[in-house]
Amino acid sequence: MTTDEANGPIRSVATLQVGLSGVRERREEVVVEAPFAIQLNGEILAVTMRTPGHDDELTAGFMLAEGHGSQASGAPVRVAKRGTLSSASCGVCGRDDVEDLIARLSPVVAETTFRAADISSAMQRLPDHQPSFARTGGLHAAALFTHRGELVVAREDIGRHNAVDKVLGRAVLDGILPLSKHLLAVSGRTSFEIVQKAVAAGVPALVAISAPSSLAIELAERFGVLLIGFARGGGFTAYAGRFRLEGAA
Amino acid sequence: MTTDEANGPIRSVATLQVGLSGVRERREEVVVEAPFAIQLNGEILAVTMRTPGHDDELTAGFMLAEGHGSQASGAPVRVAKRGTLSSASCGVCGRDDVEDLIARLSPVVAETTFRAADISSAMQRLPDHQPSFARTGGLHAAALFTHRGELVVAREDIGRHNAVDKVLGRAVLDGILPLSKHLLAVSGRTSFEIVQKAVAAGVPALVAISAPSSLAIELAERFGVLLIGFARGGGFTAYAGRFRLEGAA
Repeated sequence: MTTDEANGPIRSVATLQVGLSGVRERREEVVVEAPFAIQLNGEILAVTMRTPGHDDELTAGFMLAEGHGSQASGAPVRVAKRGTLSSASCGVCGRDDVEDLIARLSPVVAETTFRAADISSAMQRLPDHQPSFARTGGLHAAALFTHRGELVVAREDIGRHNAVDKVLGRAVLDGILPLSKHLLAVSGRTSFEIVQKAVAAGVPALVAISAPSSLAIELAERFGVLLIGFARGGGFTAYAGRFRLEGAA
Repeated sequence: MTTDEANGPIRSVATLQVGLSGVRERREEVVVEAPFAIQLNGEILAVTMRTPGHDDELTAGFMLAEGHGSQASGAPVRVAKRGTLSSASCGVCGRDDVEDLIARLSPVVAETTFRAADISSAMQRLPDHQPSFARTGGLHAAALFTHRGELVVAREDIGRHNAVDKVLGRAVLDGILPLSKHLLAVSGRTSFEIVQKAVAAGVPALVAISAPSSLAIELAERFGVLLIGFARGGGFTAYAGRFRLEGAA
């Protein structure tokens, strides 16, 4: 798996556009997501998923908020924050590249396929399950649907990852894993970690209202997940795992 | 500082609505953000900022992705992931409540005030500095403006926190902290951590296109930061620090 270090913030990928007027191939640009180790005096403080570029600034800004900046006092602390995947002091030393991060994952082996109409129908009903977003505009939503578009559970949270954790956690508590006949819907974008969570739960399809990252696409392709973005207005774009899309092979 | 554990996902707050037709007081609903410790067998694995509710599911889902779930193998690992603030094994044990998290911050003492027209003008020009968002729809942006609305630096990143880190990191590298005559603009929502970063840099105003969380508002109020949300179409909503808004006292 490449990480696009040299290719800047944008990469072009092959996609399948599915709409009311049919299906067509098209290249689209996606934002690059790649791991970066934030280091102080040669020691790794944290590994963050970021868009390559201005990494010196990222390091300086991260350390400012962590108390290493010009307004800081006291000794450096090692801390893992939102946006960081691991800390050198967390017992996961060395888990600082993508291969390490996915070493525990297994491909989604279910042969489940999906109909475009069921996907669109599920996504068009997602706002019905976002009562708090409607009131505050401040929450993300995740929802689990059957492969035929019937709602299983929906949750809202200020954190994208939390919303996904709650939905998949509900399935864990109900003892229904692996989720081999389901699709996971998310209200925002898809990053490496969202796909990682879907794969861990055995979900064969991940559908988002917004864009995926480069690494989300790579991970979904490698682990056999149908990855869909821009699911809006009855259409969507398929970025990976299109063998699971009926009539689109 | 209260954390709304008992009050569910939504809280009502007093705001000031600033628009082309004038200024008025109005109560608005915001989403609650509060810390939660994810524990396994009584041991804290991570502290995450989440919206209260379904915490058993959050714990189960978090552990699934971390390899503690039904598909997991091997011994439990301690890991701090995106969405977590600290890990019990990270040398920051005990930094698991809000007071601990803000103990190193100092109030923004600058007496800088802002004009509504300058704020709106700056925000209307923010899209000009989001070239990669325009192409991919997949990035967040942050930008630093002077208090009169002149651009200093703008950065894009797949992570909200990274974009803010890059902008503030640029200022650190340029030796211009504290940023006492500036406003920090962000393309998305404002959470506890975004305000925390602004305070660490001494920024007296934080302006966002989307909604703030409950904890973002509390932190901004306590540390003297003008916090603005829904800065769109020439108007905006002020949630905290309104003493910094000219003509709105």
